[in-house]
Amino acid sequence: MNAVMQLLRNHRSIRKFTDQPVDDDTVADIVSCAQAAATSSNVQATTVIRVRDVERREHLAELAGGQPYVASAAVFLVFCADLNRTRTACAQQGKTMVEGMTEHFLIATVDVALAAQNAVIAAESLGLGICYIGGLRNNPQAVSDLLELPDQVYPVFGLCLGHPDQDPQIKPRLPLDSVLMEERYRDGDDSTAQLADYDSTLREYYATRTGGQKNSSWSEEMVALVGKESRPHMQSFLHDRGLAKR
Amino acid sequence: MNAVMQLLRNHRSIRKFTDQPVDDDTVADIVSCAQAAATSSNVQATTVIRVRDVERREHLAELAGGQPYVASAAVFLVFCADLNRTRTACAQQGKTMVEGMTEHFLIATVDVALAAQNAVIAAESLGLGICYIGGLRNNPQAVSDLLELPDQVYPVFGLCLGHPDQDPQIKPRLPLDSVLMEERYRDGDDSTAQLADYDSTLREYYATRTGGQKNSSWSEEMVALVGKESRPHMQSFLHDRGLAKR
Repeated sequence: MNAVMQLLRNHRSIRKFTDQPVDDDTVADIVSCAQAAATSSNVQATTVIRVRDVERREHLAELAGGQPYVASAAVFLVFCADLNRTRTACAQQGKTMVEGMTEHFLIATVDVALAAQNAVIAAESLGLGICYIGGLRNNPQAVSDLLELPDQVYPVFGLCLGHPDQDPQIKPRLPLDSVLMEERYRDGDDSTAQLADYDSTLREYYATRTGGQKNSSWSEEMVALVGKESRPHMQSFLHDRGLAKR
Repeated sequence: MNAVMQLLRNHRSIRKFTDQPVDDDTVADIVSCAQAAATSSNVQATTVIRVRDVERREHLAELAGGQPYVASAAVFLVFCADLNRTRTACAQQGKTMVEGMTEHFLIATVDVALAAQNAVIAAESLGLGICYIGGLRNNPQAVSDLLELPDQVYPVFGLCLGHPDQDPQIKPRLPLDSVLMEERYRDGDDSTAQLADYDSTLREYYATRTGGQKNSSWSEEMVALVGKESRPHMQSFLHDRGLAKR
């Protein structure tokens, strides 16, 4: 693997940052790299809102479920899926955007994720650490109010950027065989055995990394994540923003 | 900007490939880079199905709206959002996954996009060209049938990989100022003027690149994209897969 691939493979989320700032030109370059990602039909549905104000940052940290690095990271960006800009473009042509389509919502969301991942790679190539903040979706309406988002726009996630003040180990992933299939979806005994193997791998990783304080397998983590309702407000929130209604 | 950032900024979609193959180890390395992307709560909701069979590739090319490079690229991968694996994990713990949550659908979709963009960067770092194929969502049920996807899994997009046999120019993006905002969403006269500027830039780009054959602005492209219903089957398709129902 070449140096870029090594960089990709070395990703770990960073949740503790030094006080060292990141200058504005660097942030501009990072967002410019985000813009260069592929975009469906050139829609460019990504809007990035940088929040600097200390009180607003603390408010966002709280809204994200009490994640202090949202306030303490050198840079905090909110990645929004934006169909307001396309609505404006339609209006300039004397046309009306068709609102509420699930497909447009999907296009915009994927667009944002591709752009954000480019930003992440750019930042990591500069030696910065990053952490995605899906927790903004804990209170997406409050986040939208704080950022004065118009309808047709929603906050997909936040992104912390800064100089790392920790050096966590890389978390092992599912075996490649579990996720790369040939010709058709493969399910069955093999997959079950692979998951059981990975359960052991991950349990061992936590035992080593956390000195035994965390003791869980992937299956147990998944029960915690999808064995219960998650953010049950999301559908009605999106509908209120005029998104994914039909 | 460093070499990685230059690589990110040099992205163009490639739609014409040479006959030169890409070996299996390289594909494995690329997918392994995809796996290294950040993943929400470690859900790892990405499954990649590689299609090699010529007839199946031609069928997919047709289902994607007649995109011949789906059949002719050295490698074609279908990126699926997979909540079947987490369902299996829950079952192994004697628990039941809560199905149909919009938030789980969103987590899985974002996961796939982050992973795919890592795959793209890895591929481009090796000198390969790529093209995302959102067109798989033209006929997502037929694609799901062809790939024998269980419910809780859906094809988000395809990805062509191969050695480029064309050298298209980089398409200009919206001005950075239009997409990077400070503290709050910014809308108004400035934004409208920026869009008008970009309309001219893009029209000029097309005039130069296509020798005047294509003559459209971004606003006109957006009317074509969101000024009409797009893939109106998506919501019911997703519901049929057991996804995003509530």
